[in-house]
Parts: sequence; C-alpha cells; structure tokens
Amino acid sequence: MTLAPPRRDMKTHLLRIILSAVLLTTGSMLAQQRVEQWDRFETTLRYSPERNGYLDVTLRATFTGPDTALTVSGFYDGGDAFRIRFMPERIGSWHFSTSSNVPALDKKHGSFECIRASGGNHGMVRVSDVTSFAYADGKRFYPVGTTAYAWIHMKEERQERTLQTLAGTGFNKVRMCVFPKEYDLIKTRPERYPFAVKERTAGGSGREKIIWDFDTFDPDFFRHLERRVDDLRRIGIEADLILFHPYDKGRWGFDTMPRDVNRRYVQYLVARLSSFRNVWWSVANEWDYVKSKSHDDWEELSKLVVASDPYRHLCSIHGSTARYYEYWEGQFTHVSIQDDAPVQYRGGAATLRNVYHKPVICDEVGYEGNLKYRWGRLSPEEITYRAWMGALAGIYVTHGECYMSENDTTAIFWAEGGDLKGRSWQRFAFLRRILEEGPGPLSMSDIGRDYYTASAGKGYYIIYFGKDTLDTWLFSLPVRNSGYGRVAAGIRFKVEIIDTWGMTIEPSPTVFETTAEIDYRVYDTAGRRVQLPSKPYIALRVTAVD
Amino acid sequence: MTLAPPRRDMKTHLLRIILSAVLLTTGSMLAQQRVEQWDRFETTLRYSPERNGYLDVTLRATFTGPDTALTVSGFYDGGDAFRIRFMPERIGSWHFSTSSNVPALDKKHGSFECIRASGGNHGMVRVSDVTSFAYADGKRFYPVGTTAYAWIHMKEERQERTLQTLAGTGFNKVRMCVFPKEYDLIKTRPERYPFAVKERTAGGSGREKIIWDFDTFDPDFFRHLERRVDDLRRIGIEADLILFHPYDKGRWGFDTMPRDVNRRYVQYLVARLSSFRNVWWSVANEWDYVKSKSHDDWEELSKLVVASDPYRHLCSIHGSTARYYEYWEGQFTHVSIQDDAPVQYRGGAATLRNVYHKPVICDEVGYEGNLKYRWGRLSPEEITYRAWMGALAGIYVTHGECYMSENDTTAIFWAEGGDLKGRSWQRFAFLRRILEEGPGPLSMSDIGRDYYTASAGKGYYIIYFGKDTLDTWLFSLPVRNSGYGRVAAGIRFKVEIIDTWGMTIEPSPTVFETTAEIDYRVYDTAGRRVQLPSKPYIALRVTAVD
Repeated sequence: MTLAPPRRDMKTHLLRIILSAVLLTTGSMLAQQRVEQWDRFETTLRYSPERNGYLDVTLRATFTGPDTALTVSGFYDGGDAFRIRFMPERIGSWHFSTSSNVPALDKKHGSFECIRASGGNHGMVRVSDVTSFAYADGKRFYPVGTTAYAWIHMKEERQERTLQTLAGTGFNKVRMCVFPKEYDLIKTRPERYPFAVKERTAGGSGREKIIWDFDTFDPDFFRHLERRVDDLRRIGIEADLILFHPYDKGRWGFDTMPRDVNRRYVQYLVARLSSFRNVWWSVANEWDYVKSKSHDDWEELSKLVVASDPYRHLCSIHGSTARYYEYWEGQFTHVSIQDDAPVQYRGGAATLRNVYHKPVICDEVGYEGNLKYRWGRLSPEEITYRAWMGALAGIYVTHGECYMSENDTTAIFWAEGGDLKGRSWQRFAFLRRILEEGPGPLSMSDIGRDYYTASAGKGYYIIYFGKDTLDTWLFSLPVRNSGYGRVAAGIRFKVEIIDTWGMTIEPSPTVFETTAEIDYRVYDTAGRRVQLPSKPYIALRVTAVD
Repeated sequence: MTLAPPRRDMKTHLLRIILSAVLLTTGSMLAQQRVEQWDRFETTLRYSPERNGYLDVTLRATFTGPDTALTVSGFYDGGDAFRIRFMPERIGSWHFSTSSNVPALDKKHGSFECIRASGGNHGMVRVSDVTSFAYADGKRFYPVGTTAYAWIHMKEERQERTLQTLAGTGFNKVRMCVFPKEYDLIKTRPERYPFAVKERTAGGSGREKIIWDFDTFDPDFFRHLERRVDDLRRIGIEADLILFHPYDKGRWGFDTMPRDVNRRYVQYLVARLSSFRNVWWSVANEWDYVKSKSHDDWEELSKLVVASDPYRHLCSIHGSTARYYEYWEGQFTHVSIQDDAPVQYRGGAATLRNVYHKPVICDEVGYEGNLKYRWGRLSPEEITYRAWMGALAGIYVTHGECYMSENDTTAIFWAEGGDLKGRSWQRFAFLRRILEEGPGPLSMSDIGRDYYTASAGKGYYIIYFGKDTLDTWLFSLPVRNSGYGRVAAGIRFKVEIIDTWGMTIEPSPTVFETTAEIDYRVYDTAGRRVQLPSKPYIALRVTAVD
C-alpha cells in the first residue's frame, strides 16, 4: 500500500498507519494487507484542512478489483484524518486511487488483497428469491429482530449490558436510531451528539438548550456508533439503522434540520458506515409523524441514501400504524411496516407478500409490555402468536419489549436496552430455530384456500393452529404445495408437534401415507389423526420420509 | 356542422347525415346539434377506401371546446363509413377538425353544442377521494358488480333476457369479455366475431376451425358490442370490458394473435368505445393464464389502452388467484383483483386499501354456485359475507353466480347471462342501498385496532359482526373515527340493526349518549346495550342524532 508521506499532527494515528503498513512492501502480494470478503478495508490520508474539513473538502476513491470497480466517498474524521473505507465483495487484488479538491488527498493510491471469508462471516444480507433474505454467501437469513431505539445513547454500562443481553437471545437484527430519542419513557441524557455544539443555553423546564454547529460533525459520536455496529456484528446481529425519527420534540431539533444539513448528514453517515456489512438503512421511523418533512423530502432522502451507498445495503422506510409508503419504488429493497392487521387474522400477511413482490417485515405489530399505550401492552403469548402468523405466511415480525416497573428505575428494553424481562424473546429464538431448520423460506401452500398450511420445500410443511385449541388433527394436506409441485399419492410423512409457546417438539408416532387427491386435498390412506395437546399456539412440522 | 360533400355509395347513411344536419345553419347556436355532457357526438365521413380501410387509412379529429382540446381517433366502420365519436365533458360549443392521410377525410370540420346532462346521466365514473369512485357530476359510485363474461356472445333471446334480469337487480357494473369464451360450461357458438373470416375448415372434435383475416375487423361485431354497452348504460350499469382473456384453448386463437394485431385491436376498440361513458377497461382477465403473452406484453397493452383513450376511463387488469399486478403503475386507476384472502378474515381488505392508495375491487372472491370447482360453490351466505367484509373496509366485492342444473340446459349467469337463480344477488342490492344511504365511502374507524367498526362521516358508523352470533352488543365506539375527528363525550346516537341476510333494518329503541374516552373508546353513559337477534350476518348502523 502506497500512501502519501506522513504530515504534521500525526500523533496517535501515526502508530496505526505504521502497523497497518508494516507488512507491506511494494509489489509483494504476500506482504500486502489482507482483508476478508465483506470485511472492512480502511486507509487514512493526512491533511489538516485550513477551512471546514466536512464542508470544503471532497474525497472519493475508486476501488478496482476482480471484474469490478466501485467508487466510494471518503470522509473527514476530525484533526488531520481523512479516511476511506471499503468493503470488498470479491476475492482477489484490489487497487484504489483517490480524487479530491485538495492536492494532498488527490491521486493517492494503494492496494490490498481480499481473501475468502472465514468463520461466521457470511457477508451482507440481501434480498433472495424475491420475498426472502440471504447473506451474500448464500446462507439464508430469516429476520428475527428486536427493537432498542436509543440504546447507544444510554450510559456506557447499560450499553454493555444490552450487548450481553442480545448475545444471549436469538435476535439477529435490532432496530436502532442514529439520533437520540426524546420520550417520556427515556430520561438519560446522551453523552455524544452528531454535531458540534455552538452554544449551550438554559432551555425551558430546567433543561439546557443546545445550539448546534450543523456545519461540523462530531466524529466521536460516529466512532461510537460504529463501535456499537461492530459490536453487534460480532454477535451476529444486523443493525437496522434509523436515520430520521420524530422523537425529538424540540429538545435537539434533529428532526427539523435544514434541508442541506439533512442531505449532508445522510452522505456523511453513509460514507462512514456503508462498509459495515451488517448495516441496514431505515430512512425513518414513523416518517409521517415528522411534521417538518414532506413526502418529497422522504423521496429525496431515501434516494440519496441509495445513491450514496455503493454496496446497496438493505433499505426501507417505516411509518406509523398502517401508513404504507410506496414500497414498490426502486430505492426500497423490502417493506418495513408498522401494522397489526396483517398478523392478527389469517390471510393478511400472505396478501402483503403477494402484493409487493419484495420481502415484508412487520417492524411493529405492537410490543410485549405493560404500558398504558395499547401498542405497548401485548401479552407475550399475543406477540408470539403474531410472529408465527407472519412467519407462516412468509413475512417476518419484529419483537419489542416495554415493561415499566413501578418505581420506574428499570429500563424499557425497547427504548434503552438493558435487560429483557418478558417471556416472548425466548419464543422468538425458538421460532428462528424452526425457520432455520427448514429447507427454505415458508410460503402458503395453497394460497387463498388453506390459511393454515405453509410449505418450505417439496415434502416439507409447517401448519400453525394459532389460537385454535384442538385435541386431534386429521392428517390432510393441500395438493397445491406453493411452488414445489403437487403432492402425489403414496407419499409417507412424519409429523412433529411443535408447542410454539412451550418451545417443545414432540414426534407423533404415526407414519402417514397420502391418498390420491380428494377435492383439492390428500389424506392419510387410513384416515389417521395426530393427537394434539388441546392447547393454543400449536404448530405441526410435516416432513416426507424417504 | 359542416361536412365534406356527400360522395358516391352514400345509400342508407345519407339519410342519417341529412337528419343530423337538418337543424344546422352556419353561425346559429340554436340550430346546432346538441349533445348532453358525457353523451356521444358522432359524425360520419364518406370515403370508399381503395385498399384496406382498417390498415391504410389514418383518421384523427381534434375537438376544441371550453378551455380544452382533445384529439380522438376515428375508425373505419366498413363500406364507405369512417366515423368519429366524441364524448364532451364540458358544456359549451365544440368544434372539430380532422386530419387524415386520405384527402377525402382530411381537414373536415364541424361543431356541436354540449348541453347540461339531464336525468340519470351522471357522466363517467372516476376515482374520487383516493380510494373511492364518483360519477363526473360528483354523485358517489359504489361498485356493486356482477359477472357475465360471455353474455353478448349468446343467442339474441338470452341477451335480451340478461338485460331484463340485470335491470331488476341492484348491480351497477358487469364484467364482460369482448372476445367469446371457450369453456366446458359454455356451449353456444357465437354469431359474430371481431375479425373477418378468411377460411373455414374442419377442426378437431367435429368443430369447424376458422382462419381469420386479422387485417379486417368485422364492424358488425363491434356494432353489436356497442349496442349492448348502450343497453347497459340505459339501465345504469357500467360495462367493465375485458379486452383479453385465456379462455380460448385453440378454438379461435384470439389469445395468441400476433403482437401487431393485439395493438391494432386495442386501438380499434378504444377508438370505437371510448366515447361510451359507461365503459371501463379491464385489460385482461387472468392475465397470467394467457401463456402467449409476457409481462412486457401486458405492460405495453395496458399503456396502449390508456394512451389511446382521451377520456381516461377507469382501467385495471385482473389476474388469477392472488396474482397481484403492479397496480401502482400509472396506467391503472384502480385495483381489480382475484383473491379470497382479503375478505375471508378481518384486516386484509383494509390493508389492501392502505397499501395501494387507489380504489380496490375484489372482482373475484369465489362465486355463489354448485360447481365442482371450489371457486364456484360458495353458499349465498358466504359470498354475501365476503361482500360485507370488503364493504366494511372500504373496498368492493363483485358478485358472480354459477348454478348448474342437473340436465345442464340452464345457463350459468356468470358465463352466459340469462336468469339469476341464487339468493345473494338480492343481498348485493341491499348492500348497495346501505352504502348509498351513507354520507360517504366507508373506511375503518380505528385502523389496525378495531376490525368491526367503519366510519362514513362524522357521527356515522357501520359495525359488521360477520359470522359472530350475538344476543347483545354493549354500545361502544372507538374514539378514532377514520379521518372525521375524534368522538366527544355527550354525543347522542341511535342504532339500527341491519340483518344483511334477511335484508331488514330495525331501529333500536334506545338513544345512547357517549361517555368521555375510556381507554381509546367511548361507551354509553348508562352502559346500555343493544339487543341483537342471535343470528350471524348482523350489522349496525350507528348515527348521531340532532
């Protein structure tokens, strides 16, 4: 790697540069820096800007590698540090060269070697098979997410606790805000802000009011955010980053920034974070509650996110209840909705999937908790039920937990992170296990006719009874089996009884054998039944045996 | 009106021209032809084409009227007749002038006076208030449609009978195919075809096989179609014209015509029929079953329909079960889907409406009947239930009836028209009455929270219990009232009990008065209840008094 010669003010960064360059000698592949596929290459160029490094300096780098070239934006990280980050997706040699309006940053070049991913590195999550997700290496990704909007803005100790908690769950995605959140349920004052402080004054109700220097980002804020995104990556969790939200209420004004600041913020954030493989962009939470922005603003901002991101991370936007954005637009890879309706009754979730031809995530269907607000007082059984209702139809439901204790000293996980106190999170982990044990994503077997049976492959079904309380089930499958071909006579099946609440899987002793088609369905040749435990929330896994 | 001087071969048309011109003197408004708003102006130009009048002659006319100018296509109607039709939408003087590649048709001009619509003429139906419909004069239109795919291809006597039947129902829309339909349930041989016959040969299974002259339309076919569309207009029914369908099975080949013939057919049909105010375009029925056409073909054809139609009639496309086309595309004014799922359970229909921001019509949710096919054996109760489930959520469900008698001599109305034998059609009329008695279109009062209550205005609710069988109902309304403002305390309401199956409306004797909000709802101050008849399919109409 060839870099510009070190300049003044190198200080602590000098050591880092030397370390990353120490193995390199020009022309030697062996000695080059090695970066795993979908990991992050980073290089720092030194220049002390005479004016505003965020506003006045442009820096881009074009990376050329196997059969591909990508141009990324560099960013100013304060002091004399201009950084360029890159996530290589292809194995082989990569070279880059920079362009800048500052000679000291212009026409710099370097190279590195991208090597095969190892261990738990499966790459970015992308859309797969129209309505599903998979990592870049092909491994299926079934989103089983939770919500911890402001966890990175809490006290350090709580943040660490949140990571410990998440590591012990089955969640593989977390919805979280870049900006801090003002809310009657969140009391903690953030330690870092994305912009430099111009002036602190006494605001109303005893709170200080900060006047921001919107021309100057605070790199510490972003370094902290990045550290937390990396922390999530290490425990296998995708960071569904919410770029804008309405929960500001005049406290900081991040929801009412000028239009050019919004744009600059998006570009800066994406320049810093798009090389993080576990990042998803959620352009907004409850976009329609952000009164300062019009629909045109959201159009512009969401397109800007995508235009700024050379890797095309997953991107969506999230509204208030039943506010469906135009998710068919090209900038959105998937649907991220807030709506209870598709998962409270049968039929709705599958319909959404049929409509959009994109993956659908119900990123709010209400939350487990005990709040006075109706969106925050679902029983653990109810949210688990809704997660299964979604999963059966091939969409995905996100968890959230809002338990407020009497003395109000314990954190609400949904807002602040900390400890989970509920009883649904274990069931979400169990659901994820069931999904991952299947051969592929679920979809309704016989759309619009059988609302209980989903297929995940030839000879593989999940049947979910929801709130029905049955003592037996007559073996019966629809002849239509989603896209996997019709069920023939003489196929032998085993059945497992899944207690989705009790988290148990019990095999039925019987091996069933299909009849020929009888009025769109097949039955067991002897008309046999499965004994069920007369409880709600029972599912069946029906699998062909040889 | 000034026309080109009469030429040879005028024959019977001469009289018509003279009659339509007899009152006209240049410069006199009084003496001009008068056409009601949204009625049809027609003029005929005489020219005997030396080659193919359908292929080789272009004819357009630009109509200039109050603040507007529209260009329409003329069409060749056989013999020496080239016709131009125009539907004026604005009152006042209209002038036209023609352009043609044939001197005899070029630069002709004329004028007429558009007068205010009278009586039952409310104009074209258009989208209104995003998800609803209204006639051009502002009168609400609630689609309560039925299906009679091939009725215009049956024997004359049956066609007349169909019109008599329809006139005695409450239906205000009928889905019908331009092309004849080959189906094991339809035996009648059509008397007219849209193309001239080139050759008749003996086909397989004793049927004749016709080779078409795709370069030559048969104007008789289209005149007949037009007569039937006008017949429907006279009884207040919109003609939801299906341009393509897959029910051909090699008998005529209208589903596998060459691409240029498809285009020419669309343009010819639209040129002839777009001036009929009660026409809707349904680009296809079960488009995905037409194996000869790709998605790109449908894109092209649906855009061509719209580009050819200067009035922008309602336009959609209809697929097989749960095949949702990209209804968000600009050429589609509304969603015309085949899917049972949105109306079998609660939540789904409202979700569709929220998703599309366009009116939604479930143009097939299964049909009342006794067929062996599962789509054709709903009970009358079930299809009525589905219609109400849709209506409650602000979408519209289309009726169809498929009763086959033992000796197979009676027509299935859904295919052939004739007589209705079922018991749901009267309930559809009753539903239409309820909808029209309301102050506006229904939408869920408290979306995603209350799945039973819809609002149609301030102080106006419909509650539908569906299959629930209740003996009392505790007076209770959600505080949220769709877009009509929250319900206050102290509002007095009356309640009517609607038996949607029995078609009765009984007032409850009690006048209720609302409490203040209690956990998102209001109740009666004395906690009073409505006595219900312990039957399924009961609805309530809750109306504020004084």
